[in-house]
Amino acid sequence: MTELVKSDAVQALLDKVAGMPEPGGDDRFKAILRDMTEAMMIVIERHDVSDGELWTFVDYLQKAAPEFGLIVPGIGIEHFMDLKADRDEAEQHADAQTTPRTIEGPLFVEGAPQSDYVAKLNAAGESGEPLTIEGTIRDVDGAAIDGAVLDVWHADLSGLYSHFDSSQPAFNNRAKIIPSADGGYKIETIMPVGYSVPPGGSTEQLLGAVGRHGDRPAHVHLLVRAPGYAPLTTQINIADDPKVHDDFAFGTRDGLVPSIDRLGNHAHITFDLILRKAEDDAESSLSVRPRAAA
Amino acid sequence: MTELVKSDAVQALLDKVAGMPEPGGDDRFKAILRDMTEAMMIVIERHDVSDGELWTFVDYLQKAAPEFGLIVPGIGIEHFMDLKADRDEAEQHADAQTTPRTIEGPLFVEGAPQSDYVAKLNAAGESGEPLTIEGTIRDVDGAAIDGAVLDVWHADLSGLYSHFDSSQPAFNNRAKIIPSADGGYKIETIMPVGYSVPPGGSTEQLLGAVGRHGDRPAHVHLLVRAPGYAPLTTQINIADDPKVHDDFAFGTRDGLVPSIDRLGNHAHITFDLILRKAEDDAESSLSVRPRAAA
Repeated sequence: MTELVKSDAVQALLDKVAGMPEPGGDDRFKAILRDMTEAMMIVIERHDVSDGELWTFVDYLQKAAPEFGLIVPGIGIEHFMDLKADRDEAEQHADAQTTPRTIEGPLFVEGAPQSDYVAKLNAAGESGEPLTIEGTIRDVDGAAIDGAVLDVWHADLSGLYSHFDSSQPAFNNRAKIIPSADGGYKIETIMPVGYSVPPGGSTEQLLGAVGRHGDRPAHVHLLVRAPGYAPLTTQINIADDPKVHDDFAFGTRDGLVPSIDRLGNHAHITFDLILRKAEDDAESSLSVRPRAAA
Repeated sequence: MTELVKSDAVQALLDKVAGMPEPGGDDRFKAILRDMTEAMMIVIERHDVSDGELWTFVDYLQKAAPEFGLIVPGIGIEHFMDLKADRDEAEQHADAQTTPRTIEGPLFVEGAPQSDYVAKLNAAGESGEPLTIEGTIRDVDGAAIDGAVLDVWHADLSGLYSHFDSSQPAFNNRAKIIPSADGGYKIETIMPVGYSVPPGGSTEQLLGAVGRHGDRPAHVHLLVRAPGYAPLTTQINIADDPKVHDDFAFGTRDGLVPSIDRLGNHAHITFDLILRKAEDDAESSLSVRPRAAA
């Protein structure tokens, strides 16, 4: 049922679309654009997508653009990139017992205030269950890593992130930690809560059209960078959130749901972060994803 | 090379992405979203697209959203919809000798002033070669069509369209014509010129990345609607434009490049518009593409 796409006329069209006959342009991008356009045409032909359906969806995408950072994880593409990185790592470093990666999401901000060993979050002074997260940052052989820097960020009790929510103090629930000499770090904050995609927004509309919710269980984002090591972007999920394994963004993973110890009214999580050495400069660099900075 | 996408883990992810296990939502949209997401993942896996490449492209798409109406034709999808409609029509109405359709583009505006038989365009009074386009609107048996209405629209000599270019008089180079009793129509205007996608814009950036230009040869858009007939969206290309067969939007088609007769300083084009009866109400309706109206 893709006879039309495979016809000489459409294959010639695709060659022109991707600039195959043109001397200029980037050969890799040409090949990707050709394949991506052909893939869209195949889906259109297979489902006999009508003009009205196509243009209604294009109109949707135009309005949805500000939420692409949520839609990409919402349709599993960001998690798929993690599965692909896992596979590549398993092929190249079969014995590297690193901490599982997971999605970064669109809400990291570069430039948080830096502190040694311990970061105290909740600058907004919200009332919640006190939470301590602590552990060590190590390489796969158990040694502390010179020059490691840990970024942590999580939502406030309204499910909003500072910088993107301008009503919060600057860098509320964001910090950059320089671990102790033996790799130790500690985060003092309050227990985060789950939240949802923006009500009435484009992500909610897309998910609703396929019967899905737009909820993310409570979590804390972590990013560790160190010279000569592959960066680790991950998160801790809060084990007792009822949706811990039902994240619209597919961010929950085995190994990222640490147990919670409670002493009186204080919750405590131990979580170690294990990195592996990078093979080359490219592998030790964070991806060039456009990010906010403040 | 698509082993990862075809793995049980990713197939299960795709089922969740498309809401397959959920009772709510639209079954047709679920199937299309699943296939479209899988197709994107296959291209990502095949070309080993990096995180940086993915997010740079997502960032591009966010900024490009206002130009999606140009990018969709620029990557041939709008022309592909015409090829698909041609195939469907050939299967169902093999002997219908209708005027070829071509792309509408994003610049049609509903609500142009209506006139009988003849429309005088160029309300802005630009100086150019006078051009008359005339012909008849008929059904495939040669009979005039009751209730036919012809919309015409073209760019000014700067390559801009009224309504979207607010410096032009309202409905400049736009009209709605009620043909004469024998189906005749006449358009009095000036010879249009070719133009390009917005300089420095997202469409130009995409096309440049694959070595392509963003030029459209000179053309005049036509849309005929009549109760009980399949609407016809088409255009006349100006035969002596040097890029007449090199349109970034793939709109030029055989049968849509009429010859130009010149008498002194006046150009004259004869172009008939042949429609076929619609099988049902759906076929007689214009697609529900979101359109501007004034």
